[in-house]
Amino acid sequence: MTENDLDYFPVAGIRLGTAAAGISHPDRDDLLVIELPAGATCSAVFTRNAFCAAPVLVARAHLQQGSPRYLLVNSGNANAGTGEQGIADAGACCEALARLVSCEIHEILPFSTGVIGEFLPIKRLVDALPQATAALSETGWPQAARAIMTTDTRPKLESRRFSIGDGEASVTGIAKGAGMIRPDMATLLGYVATDLAVAPELLQKCLTQAVAPSFNAITVDGDTSTNDACILMASGTAALPVVDSADSPAFPILCDTVREVCMELARDIVRDGEGATKLVEVIVESAADPDEARSVAYTVAHSPLVKTALFASDPNWGRILAAVGRALPDLVIHGVEIWLDDVCIVRDGARAPDYTEAAGQAVMDRDELAITVKLGRGSAATRVLTCDLSYDYVRINAEYRT
Amino acid sequence: MTENDLDYFPVAGIRLGTAAAGISHPDRDDLLVIELPAGATCSAVFTRNAFCAAPVLVARAHLQQGSPRYLLVNSGNANAGTGEQGIADAGACCEALARLVSCEIHEILPFSTGVIGEFLPIKRLVDALPQATAALSETGWPQAARAIMTTDTRPKLESRRFSIGDGEASVTGIAKGAGMIRPDMATLLGYVATDLAVAPELLQKCLTQAVAPSFNAITVDGDTSTNDACILMASGTAALPVVDSADSPAFPILCDTVREVCMELARDIVRDGEGATKLVEVIVESAADPDEARSVAYTVAHSPLVKTALFASDPNWGRILAAVGRALPDLVIHGVEIWLDDVCIVRDGARAPDYTEAAGQAVMDRDELAITVKLGRGSAATRVLTCDLSYDYVRINAEYRT
Repeated sequence: MTENDLDYFPVAGIRLGTAAAGISHPDRDDLLVIELPAGATCSAVFTRNAFCAAPVLVARAHLQQGSPRYLLVNSGNANAGTGEQGIADAGACCEALARLVSCEIHEILPFSTGVIGEFLPIKRLVDALPQATAALSETGWPQAARAIMTTDTRPKLESRRFSIGDGEASVTGIAKGAGMIRPDMATLLGYVATDLAVAPELLQKCLTQAVAPSFNAITVDGDTSTNDACILMASGTAALPVVDSADSPAFPILCDTVREVCMELARDIVRDGEGATKLVEVIVESAADPDEARSVAYTVAHSPLVKTALFASDPNWGRILAAVGRALPDLVIHGVEIWLDDVCIVRDGARAPDYTEAAGQAVMDRDELAITVKLGRGSAATRVLTCDLSYDYVRINAEYRT
Repeated sequence: MTENDLDYFPVAGIRLGTAAAGISHPDRDDLLVIELPAGATCSAVFTRNAFCAAPVLVARAHLQQGSPRYLLVNSGNANAGTGEQGIADAGACCEALARLVSCEIHEILPFSTGVIGEFLPIKRLVDALPQATAALSETGWPQAARAIMTTDTRPKLESRRFSIGDGEASVTGIAKGAGMIRPDMATLLGYVATDLAVAPELLQKCLTQAVAPSFNAITVDGDTSTNDACILMASGTAALPVVDSADSPAFPILCDTVREVCMELARDIVRDGEGATKLVEVIVESAADPDEARSVAYTVAHSPLVKTALFASDPNWGRILAAVGRALPDLVIHGVEIWLDDVCIVRDGARAPDYTEAAGQAVMDRDELAITVKLGRGSAATRVLTCDLSYDYVRINAEYRT
């Protein structure tokens, strides 16, 4: 989505409110409260980084105790690498919100994103809670998408409305993320909601299948965050039957729609990758197995040499070939093909006889392009979205804390 | 070494000659011939990249057929990704040199480094051979170190002289490499020679033990080259007994010296890493096993976020912590310590109570520093040398072919 493209469908029952807590950005909202109605269901996936942040630990524990009524999100500070005090701080914020809205502490899930290793300024955060809850509204999605941004240059909001029998339902989601992006089980922060009523185990299934080809198939810099989390909420306010079985007619439609929204949000994240000038799909086909396919795809997607060639729009395909050869030292290269969009650059393991630099250049000049590697070893395939490596990536990450 | 620090000990019997073949650099030598005396031994390690270059395939095949008399090296063109024609081209160059110096084709090992995917300009290369062989001299090492450079900003030459009983022997080596540096079994190009006489299997043993902690423990950008090769030559001209047994008194001294020379050359390569402003040693201790130690060390050493923080001299240690947690999702973080030189930043899995930003900043301001990660899981350890990620890395690799 672009900055001016924030059209969306509200999700009945889901209200969002933001406030400026002054956590690290003086002039913008950096605090978000999301309210779920009583009876709503909620599923979640979190980062697998061993140094996962305090709010991830607290949110996981709270989810064990029952269905959440509120999500409390701050940007500007990740509350990660903060040890016991970080956990106490996340708990204190939940407690303050619970008192304000009269619910149980475990009905609140905390989330943080921003600098690692600094303690959360909980007084400023708690002081801003009344402003955020006063702002709660079903039309708060665009403000919410902005409040969770860190180095993002654009808010990320995607929305779909679909028919089921005589009724209609919505799926709307927001996400943030531009750097430290190589999600493993989740993305930085993603919040997706529907007004269907969905049984918890089906909601989790829906989320898991949606995350795999979307947030779990993107990479900006290969760095998995300590704070990744993706949440799927079902308010149950739509005038439609409860989705309580995988055979419910609404379930496959919901799954497709949630996956579609997650794919678009994931695309938005890579397109807004730190310093990114290009959106690149790395497709690996005819691999021996899915692990091999992913390994080759990520090796190409993470190669600094491939990424700088993409930045320069230089069809220096030798770097792609070198990355493939590095990923699979036992590869028999004679079966390998490499394509830039519809231009075959490598066939039978060497430069394709009909390849011309002009044809390669024409593809490289595009803002969006696909690198396809056909390994000729089996039938597994995968796709990974990535971006280039530019001066601005270095600038953004060299200047991040200054 | 610095540009003005090219003192070295020649290796009796090993002669080097260079010439300007105009392969890609118009105004400098880009062709090198190294001559070994009859009876010399030679061992080699090569890249494990599946897309290894044509000269690597040819050199491997020639080594099977006997001891080499000449090494033929060009910079500016890697002769990789060039299929059958690349192999024919490498063979044609060997044949031309063999005719010129009257030896067998298989007594010549070819090496290339430079752009991948373009055919070797063999006419220009062959035409320059007489100039290179006419220049053959035992004092050709500095010119040789320069002729093999690509994006290197400095030649890399290291040399030692040591006593054995009443005699003396030399170990002298050159290397090139600045980008596409994450050697696997070898480095880009390294040529080391001694005037001792050494049995082939012992020479190979000596090279293997030297390469592991040196060229195989460095990384600039994680990209393993298609052309890596490291050669150890023994001319046998020293007035000393043949090293024909692992019990020979000279063997451990030779091993130590060759390892030392390789370590210094490896250090030179990282210090001259593309765009590098810092030399960083990543040390992992108390890992469960060597694989785990290497995995954590390379994850930290390759993290673009860690590398840009190093470039900015920003003690943003949360990025180191996130990289460690990504490398080992099952890590119990309470046992983990992370140090910047002698400053403990993380203890018991969280920010060390006595850590101060000023102390971290003081280390980060250094040109050379160590990041030490103590995992508290076992007794394995490793060291990896790397550098930072700067604007210049992007510039160099975005502009490489233009």
